[in-house]
Amino acid sequence: MTAIFEKVALLGVGLIGSSMAHAMRRAAVASHIAGYSRRAETLERARRLGFADSLHGDAASCVRDADLVVLATPVGSYATLAGQIAPSLKRGAILSDVGSVKSAVIRDVGPYVPEGVHFIPAHPIAGTEQSGPEAGFAELFDGRWCVLTPPPGTDAAALERLKSFWRALGSEVEVMDARHHDLVLAITSHLPHLIAYNIVGTADDLQTVTQGEVIKYSAGGFRDFTRIAASDPTMWRDVFLNNREAVLEVLGRFSEDLSALQRAIRWGDGDALFNLFTRTRAIRRSIVDAGQDTAAPNFGRGKQKDQ
Amino acid sequence: MTAIFEKVALLGVGLIGSSMAHAMRRAAVASHIAGYSRRAETLERARRLGFADSLHGDAASCVRDADLVVLATPVGSYATLAGQIAPSLKRGAILSDVGSVKSAVIRDVGPYVPEGVHFIPAHPIAGTEQSGPEAGFAELFDGRWCVLTPPPGTDAAALERLKSFWRALGSEVEVMDARHHDLVLAITSHLPHLIAYNIVGTADDLQTVTQGEVIKYSAGGFRDFTRIAASDPTMWRDVFLNNREAVLEVLGRFSEDLSALQRAIRWGDGDALFNLFTRTRAIRRSIVDAGQDTAAPNFGRGKQKDQ
Repeated sequence: MTAIFEKVALLGVGLIGSSMAHAMRRAAVASHIAGYSRRAETLERARRLGFADSLHGDAASCVRDADLVVLATPVGSYATLAGQIAPSLKRGAILSDVGSVKSAVIRDVGPYVPEGVHFIPAHPIAGTEQSGPEAGFAELFDGRWCVLTPPPGTDAAALERLKSFWRALGSEVEVMDARHHDLVLAITSHLPHLIAYNIVGTADDLQTVTQGEVIKYSAGGFRDFTRIAASDPTMWRDVFLNNREAVLEVLGRFSEDLSALQRAIRWGDGDALFNLFTRTRAIRRSIVDAGQDTAAPNFGRGKQKDQ
Repeated sequence: MTAIFEKVALLGVGLIGSSMAHAMRRAAVASHIAGYSRRAETLERARRLGFADSLHGDAASCVRDADLVVLATPVGSYATLAGQIAPSLKRGAILSDVGSVKSAVIRDVGPYVPEGVHFIPAHPIAGTEQSGPEAGFAELFDGRWCVLTPPPGTDAAALERLKSFWRALGSEVEVMDARHHDLVLAITSHLPHLIAYNIVGTADDLQTVTQGEVIKYSAGGFRDFTRIAASDPTMWRDVFLNNREAVLEVLGRFSEDLSALQRAIRWGDGDALFNLFTRTRAIRRSIVDAGQDTAAPNFGRGKQKDQ
């Protein structure tokens, strides 16, 4: 593939930033990959891993002459970063990000975008529960969706270029309104994380069941929640602080439904339970059919002796 | 290994029953494995799979002369089955089960147990989201815990024999009071399933987000819940109907904690969120350290191109 961008600047080299670098190398879509971290120790780890052509402790120098600049730190840090890099952005460059919320990113970053720079927020819906530069790998985005939320009036050529870029990284691309993105992600990602964090906290606080017992007997379902609840705390704090409205909306519905389920258990309404449990099975099948998860039982964990 | 039992009768040949048969064959712990299902079609599938030495559409004939009889159907069917087999149980035999609740099993089955038969309820904490005779495999119990809940006064020799049996199938064995078992499992298994079923139902009912979108963007966390919510509906209906008290207790605490979290989001209390998200990470590490889950990111799904 010919390079889509001369120079790409990754502000943040954690799981997502480093995976983008690996995937860019694999597809040869950039002639120069520049990486930034505010922490010297992270830069040193990135240097040893070798996925960037240049590494910077200063965001402004990282973005200089870049054709694509990607914010890849927790979204709570975007406003400060945007203020730091704004004067150094090249005219005609694309400014994008990888944050899990989009309305707040437009609110926080929008005011700093200089005339002549194309601001196109993005969200690759891919990840693992691990963090840091060592966690990245080139295949992370393969077959996953990357949602772009261009503000009204976005330059069509710049949008096409960013689409090609994500496709080259392995993603499928969708364009969506930022507000709708935030609602879709509130149910498919933010609420699942919230209740996973919550149940792990509840289990940790129980006094009638010891923590040792919770761990020992976690294979009955609990362990799957702990994996989700092991995700990066800073990133997730920022998600909930910046998608409050949509998260509270879906959380309200979740709690309402849970109360109905609680009542069905209390009153022994077996039909209500059975009907819900049957309905949810069909959704699982659709997800596997859509290629968004493996059909292997237990994610293929069950058949390995040495887990 | 020399056989621990001459004849073992499995009442139910679904995921757990068929996995027990495979594991028994692997360890050669039984000279004869008899299987029962009330459905001719299930018997035919089991016959084709060949994991049993004899198959029966009649429970009484299945248990005749058996040294170990294991109830492996949904717990709601135990009382009826126990009534059917009671007159045919051999003196000195062990009657056990694999149900996910234990107090209700003692309540339902206990009254039918004839003089001279050793009734020792058991619960292997292992499974996948798949069901039916085809879903079974010999390694299901390897490294997992099997909890035995012998009523007071249980014959020590019979208990030892059942322990050896489960160890031969690959399990580690723990002895526990039935009530405590039900509380431990309420938090480590029943509540996780309940909230997974619930969130999948909530997502299905949303009108502002389409089902297609929920499926398409499920990789952000939601898909993991759908796997759990794909478990057998009959089995899980019976679990909730038969562990009501303990489930309502942990559900009450979960809801209380969720309200506190909701309040933290509404009021933008980032420290409260960050502290919980950090605490839950430590529990994940303990589970991996205890060998109850793999440390591979995303259960190893991420690195496969073809998922």
